[in-house]
Amino acid sequence: MLEIKNHMILIDCGEGTQVQLRKIKVKFSRINHIFISHLHGDHFFGLPGLISTFRLLGRDKEMHIYGPKGIKEAITLLLKLGDSWTNYKLIFHVLESKKSELIYEDEKVAVETIPLDHRVYTNGFLFKEKLGERKLNIAAVEKYKIDRSSYQNIKNGRDVTLENGQVVSNDLLSFDPPKPKTYAYCSDTAYRPEIIPQIKEADVLYHESTFLDSEAHLSSKTKHATAKEAAAIAKEANVGQLILGHYSTRYKSIDLFKEEAQTIFDRVELADDGKTFDF
Amino acid sequence: MLEIKNHMILIDCGEGTQVQLRKIKVKFSRINHIFISHLHGDHFFGLPGLISTFRLLGRDKEMHIYGPKGIKEAITLLLKLGDSWTNYKLIFHVLESKKSELIYEDEKVAVETIPLDHRVYTNGFLFKEKLGERKLNIAAVEKYKIDRSSYQNIKNGRDVTLENGQVVSNDLLSFDPPKPKTYAYCSDTAYRPEIIPQIKEADVLYHESTFLDSEAHLSSKTKHATAKEAAAIAKEANVGQLILGHYSTRYKSIDLFKEEAQTIFDRVELADDGKTFDF
Repeated sequence: MLEIKNHMILIDCGEGTQVQLRKIKVKFSRINHIFISHLHGDHFFGLPGLISTFRLLGRDKEMHIYGPKGIKEAITLLLKLGDSWTNYKLIFHVLESKKSELIYEDEKVAVETIPLDHRVYTNGFLFKEKLGERKLNIAAVEKYKIDRSSYQNIKNGRDVTLENGQVVSNDLLSFDPPKPKTYAYCSDTAYRPEIIPQIKEADVLYHESTFLDSEAHLSSKTKHATAKEAAAIAKEANVGQLILGHYSTRYKSIDLFKEEAQTIFDRVELADDGKTFDF
Repeated sequence: MLEIKNHMILIDCGEGTQVQLRKIKVKFSRINHIFISHLHGDHFFGLPGLISTFRLLGRDKEMHIYGPKGIKEAITLLLKLGDSWTNYKLIFHVLESKKSELIYEDEKVAVETIPLDHRVYTNGFLFKEKLGERKLNIAAVEKYKIDRSSYQNIKNGRDVTLENGQVVSNDLLSFDPPKPKTYAYCSDTAYRPEIIPQIKEADVLYHESTFLDSEAHLSSKTKHATAKEAAAIAKEANVGQLILGHYSTRYKSIDLFKEEAQTIFDRVELADDGKTFDF
C-alpha cells in the first residue's frame, strides 16, 4: 500500500493480500486504484478475491485497475465462471507499451510506468506528488489585516493590493509548499540501468532484490536482481532512500540483503510483511 | 483436507489455502487429488497459487483436479499470462453432469459426485472406503501352524487345507475387516432433500450452514442452507455425524449453529479454521 496525498494505492496483489490489508487495518473503501506490475501469481493471484470482497462490502465507487494486457480477460473469465459480476464499475487500464507512459494524473499526483526487464512484460511505477499550494503565513496576513476572501489567491501565489493601494508581495504572506515527493516501485526486474534517468533523485526507491550476489547466476537466469545491483541503481540515481524486498526464501536472514547493499549505498531499509515506512 | 485410506485429498481451495495447509503441516507432496465443488472465489481462488507452489517445490508427480467446466480454461489462462507452465502433469477431470457420477476409483477408495443446488453448477462429493482385507488372527494361525505363504489367502477370505487334509474355515483364522467409512461433503447448497438416498447412513456428513433459521429468507435467495436444514438432511439420512461449516460472518458466535442444529439432530460438530476431526 502506498499512501500519497490522501490516496490509498495498492501496488501488486499476491494471494492473501486482502488478509494482510485487514491486518494493517486499511479501509478497503479508500482504495480506488490498483497497479499491477506483471501477471505472475505472487503479484496478481490475490486480485480476483479482492475484487469479489469489494462487492461483498457493498462497494459502489469505480475501481481502476492498471496492468498488463490479459488482466481484463483473466478477471472477466473468473467472474464469469462464478456468475459473480461486480455491482461497481471495474475499469481496466491495459498496459502494453515498452516505453514509459503517464497512466494516471489528477491535481495532486501523477503516475508513470517504469518499463522493467523480467521474464514477462513488467512495469514498475513512478508516483510523483505535484507541487502543492503555498502555505499561508498567518502572522503576516493578520498584520496586514488581509480579508479571508484573499487567502486562496495567496495560496495560489498571488500578491495582494491593500485598500490603501499598497501591493504586498506574496513571499511576505506565504511560505513555500512542501517539496513534492516521488516514489519509485521497481519489481520484478533484472538489473536495468536504463531506468536510472527516470528515477533520478526519487525520494524513495523500492527495488526488488530476490538474490544476493553469491547467487548472481540464478538472478540473471530468472531475471531478478541482487541486493548489490539494487544498491548500484540507487547510488547512480542518487535516491533518498532504498527499500529492498522480494527476497528468495533460501536465505536465513534478510539482514544479509541490507549488509550487501550497504557496501554500495548507505540509506537502505528492508521491506517486510506488515512493515510501514514514513517519509 | 480429507485423509482417507492413506490418501490426502484437498476439497475446495479458497484464497490462502496454501497458507492454511502449511499451518496444519500437510505435506504438499502427499496431495495428488483436488476436488473443486464450484467456481466461486471462496472455493477456487487459491488453486492457481497452489498449482504454482507445487511447481516451485519441484513436483514431478501428476496432479488430478476434478471440477466444473471452465476450470481448465481458467487455470490455463492464468498460467499462460504468467508464462509459468507446470513441470508436472496437470490432469483436469471436467464435471458437467447433473446426475451423480463415479469420478474416481482405486482399490481402496471411490468418489462420486453429489449434485447440489447452488447459484452456479455445484457438486458435493461422496468418498467411500472400500472393504479392506480381513485381519489375520495371529493366535489361530500359530495354533494351526499355518505357513506364512498362506497369510495373503486368509486375508482374502479363503479357507486353509492343512497338510493332514483338514480344512480350517476362514472365520476361525481371521477377523472381519474394519467397516468401510463414507464421508459426504456438501457445499455450497440450498436445502436439497434429493441427496438423502445417496448419503444415507454416511459416517460423516459435512453440510454447509451459511445461515440460521432467522435468515431463512436470505438462505433461499442465495441458495445456501440454514443449520436447521442441514440437521434435517442429517436426520433423514441417518448419518453418524454432522459437521457444520461455511458460516456467514454476520453471526457473533458459531455456537448458535450447533444449538439450532441440535434441536433436530444430536450429533453435531462445528468445523473451524485448522480444526481436525478423527473418525
